[in-house]
Amino acid sequence: MLLYMQTKKNYQNLISKLEEISRLKGIMGIIQWDQEVTMPSGASEARADQIGALAGVIHERMTDNVLGECLNELNEQHNDFSVFERCNIVEARREYDLMTKVPKELVQSLAALGSRGHAVWVRARKENRFSDFAPVIKEFLALKKEWAACAYPDKSAYDANIDLFERGATSVEIAVIFDQLKATLIPFIQEIKQQAYQPDTSILSGHFPVEKQEALARKISEDIGFQFDKGRMDVSVHPFCGGSHPTDIRITTRYNENDFVESLYAVIHETGHALYEQGRMTDAGDLPVSESLTMGIHESQSLFWERMIARSREFCTHYFDMICQTFPGNFQRATIDTFYQAINACEPGFIRVEADELTYPLHVILRFEIEKALFEGDLSVDDLPGVWNEKMKQYLGIVPPTDTLGVLQDSHWSSGAFGYFPSYTLGAIYACQFFQAMQGALPDAKSNIATGNFAPIKKWLNENIHSQGRLYTPQELVMRITGEQLNPQHLIDYLKVKYSEIYRLHG
Amino acid sequence: MLLYMQTKKNYQNLISKLEEISRLKGIMGIIQWDQEVTMPSGASEARADQIGALAGVIHERMTDNVLGECLNELNEQHNDFSVFERCNIVEARREYDLMTKVPKELVQSLAALGSRGHAVWVRARKENRFSDFAPVIKEFLALKKEWAACAYPDKSAYDANIDLFERGATSVEIAVIFDQLKATLIPFIQEIKQQAYQPDTSILSGHFPVEKQEALARKISEDIGFQFDKGRMDVSVHPFCGGSHPTDIRITTRYNENDFVESLYAVIHETGHALYEQGRMTDAGDLPVSESLTMGIHESQSLFWERMIARSREFCTHYFDMICQTFPGNFQRATIDTFYQAINACEPGFIRVEADELTYPLHVILRFEIEKALFEGDLSVDDLPGVWNEKMKQYLGIVPPTDTLGVLQDSHWSSGAFGYFPSYTLGAIYACQFFQAMQGALPDAKSNIATGNFAPIKKWLNENIHSQGRLYTPQELVMRITGEQLNPQHLIDYLKVKYSEIYRLHG
Repeated sequence: MLLYMQTKKNYQNLISKLEEISRLKGIMGIIQWDQEVTMPSGASEARADQIGALAGVIHERMTDNVLGECLNELNEQHNDFSVFERCNIVEARREYDLMTKVPKELVQSLAALGSRGHAVWVRARKENRFSDFAPVIKEFLALKKEWAACAYPDKSAYDANIDLFERGATSVEIAVIFDQLKATLIPFIQEIKQQAYQPDTSILSGHFPVEKQEALARKISEDIGFQFDKGRMDVSVHPFCGGSHPTDIRITTRYNENDFVESLYAVIHETGHALYEQGRMTDAGDLPVSESLTMGIHESQSLFWERMIARSREFCTHYFDMICQTFPGNFQRATIDTFYQAINACEPGFIRVEADELTYPLHVILRFEIEKALFEGDLSVDDLPGVWNEKMKQYLGIVPPTDTLGVLQDSHWSSGAFGYFPSYTLGAIYACQFFQAMQGALPDAKSNIATGNFAPIKKWLNENIHSQGRLYTPQELVMRITGEQLNPQHLIDYLKVKYSEIYRLHG
Repeated sequence: MLLYMQTKKNYQNLISKLEEISRLKGIMGIIQWDQEVTMPSGASEARADQIGALAGVIHERMTDNVLGECLNELNEQHNDFSVFERCNIVEARREYDLMTKVPKELVQSLAALGSRGHAVWVRARKENRFSDFAPVIKEFLALKKEWAACAYPDKSAYDANIDLFERGATSVEIAVIFDQLKATLIPFIQEIKQQAYQPDTSILSGHFPVEKQEALARKISEDIGFQFDKGRMDVSVHPFCGGSHPTDIRITTRYNENDFVESLYAVIHETGHALYEQGRMTDAGDLPVSESLTMGIHESQSLFWERMIARSREFCTHYFDMICQTFPGNFQRATIDTFYQAINACEPGFIRVEADELTYPLHVILRFEIEKALFEGDLSVDDLPGVWNEKMKQYLGIVPPTDTLGVLQDSHWSSGAFGYFPSYTLGAIYACQFFQAMQGALPDAKSNIATGNFAPIKKWLNENIHSQGRLYTPQELVMRITGEQLNPQHLIDYLKVKYSEIYRLHG
């Protein structure tokens, strides 16, 4: 009995330490959101210092000796622990082991460079000057290699960075999956581009006032389940989903008056992320067991809504009238069918976040291959724009006219998020498999989408994914839900059927 | 030489600790601003936890043994220290001594109650239910008395709370000053109200679209010197000036479509605070020596702009045309003269922040007397609305019809800021004395105001007050600038001259 009491007391100590860490990380979420959405431009130096200071405190808390001793005392196999408690202990130990290997100064340098790097990137992107941004990438590569050597001495530097976003995945395994996609998608895209029949994308042209885009995006985000009393929607250079807590989830987008599709689908994408966060288990505080699993699983949630749902014919059926009414005079020549085709048109373009489902994986594969080469010393940062453009030509047949439209387009490297990109395409594969499983469980799903009844679908995701937190590994989760491992063939089959029909390949 | 090196090293240690504290406090500034401006309503519980966690970290840092030892080693009288360095040491020691007397748990309880209390207050004010808010005041009084007993064992609980905002001031001294004001202002206001001639305030009525008010306020704020690249202007329930750093100062206001004066003058008031913060010495980092001196001095800066400048005939002369153009059709019957009289009309009202210069001190005196009685046990919280209304009748001849328009109007008590209110009127006295000194130094000041040339005035404030930080006590500062101590007679004389002219008392 005494031992039991001591065990429970140790567990309570662990929980209060984890809660403090989670709250400080929530604050970091707010000041980072603020930096991208509301902070005055003149404050960027001071903000870098502030982020560095808070990162230092968080690192100190996460590597606290007392936390380590507390974890040493706890045996998660003990019968008295529930499955939730066990998961908190295991996750806390994994995190602690990872963190205690990295010196505080290195963590602070990474955080400060991330903040400064973002400002440099914004300017370099605006002024189309890659050479201004190159030193940030170089500094990050050096720091990230140093970090990898501390955190994952047994892994290659790039695999260590991938592990941060997609635990257990390796660049070798990812390369196999990506090669399978490349082998199919590159010739399939070429075939499509040679087809005589092409969707008429000109029906999407026009002028779309920002206020109307914003109202429409807000309406659709709310329809599919975003809770605005526990979140916000704002504008930033690059759309993202951030926040501080499941009750405070913040999505952003950017508006282009000549293109409402980009901003609307960015909102739906970020709403997918937000639904994951807002749907976390409610009775587990803000503790590790309730956290999102991996970036790949997170992306599966954003892509589930952005692609599997919102680029379906059923979704267009439901929203076509509302879209026409929002922008009167813009869709005179359009029908549900031509609208569906137009928003799914396969058009190799420069910008990843504007890419269609078919070409998107190639944007990701390009970045994955470049990151791999950078980390493995096969590519120097100064050669990056050249290699970028070369691969664009090889995979998509086009070359960006400026670096702003090429190597400078994404914010990821400005915050040091190397190894993140693969998650987008792993997420697309997961999303496709989850969608098939969801249809099995909810036979009316497609007709529900066509009538705007998204609640059962959101509920299915809440129950099967969001509220499962970290109770299972991604491999276990996909097996539980789909009865199968991650398998790119499902995505390939889905894309072939969908695009063959749109482009009348067998027509 | 060795000793010198050791001293410099200790000082450097002190500075890096002070810098970390200042950065963490800056982060607190952002999450508090966020709470009032951008946070979704559903996040208030989580935010209270986050603020509690950060307050705990800041308290831990401010009471760190190593900081104490570092301060013990440092003798600020040492010849090697500049006057700036000395001030940093003295201020750090004062703060450290104050903080080490208060237990961390108490600091966290106060911070958490402040966050929760704010949400309770917003709702109670909206629903006109003082009884919902009363428990928060009671809890705060208990905690604040406990705090005072730890922090200032030699002072009464209320004096301890006053000292936090106006260092060195006591409730006895303030009562003397306030009694002097009461003795003059109550009969003077009665005399004015009995005058046959009254300004025509109906010329200020009308409909004032929020966007136009916002644009005008932004323009005037910028004209008088607010740097928008180092700050923001937003909307909140109660106007305030916050932020995280001299490069990140954030003011708020609230808009009423039927009254543009309230929001405009709130913006000018908060701009005065903001100019103080943006004008802090630039080469002293964000260290104690550069911080604002006291709340009274801070209020002197907001009131300097809001009243001494923006309620002057010269200011009206400059902006009357712009105001007429902003709201076409609204000021058909007005002239510069009637406009000046109308915005200065003495109208005893319920709301402090809407009060004119003459009645404002009585709002403050009422609150001061209530706080004093609450702390001294002469008044129970449940009797507060009754006493509030009684004093309103006695001082201003009116009784608020609801608590929303009475005891629930201010946010201060919801965050535990007892002892803050006196600063408003001490600030008004300082502002009046500073304005007279400024006119001595800048003989063209009034004509500069009339032509919208505010730069010399802002420069004078920057040089004489903002950039002086904490190098002098408030008493030394007012003596250096005006050659005199704080003296309410200047404010009384100024008000008598101004209002006798407006109300034609000697006409």
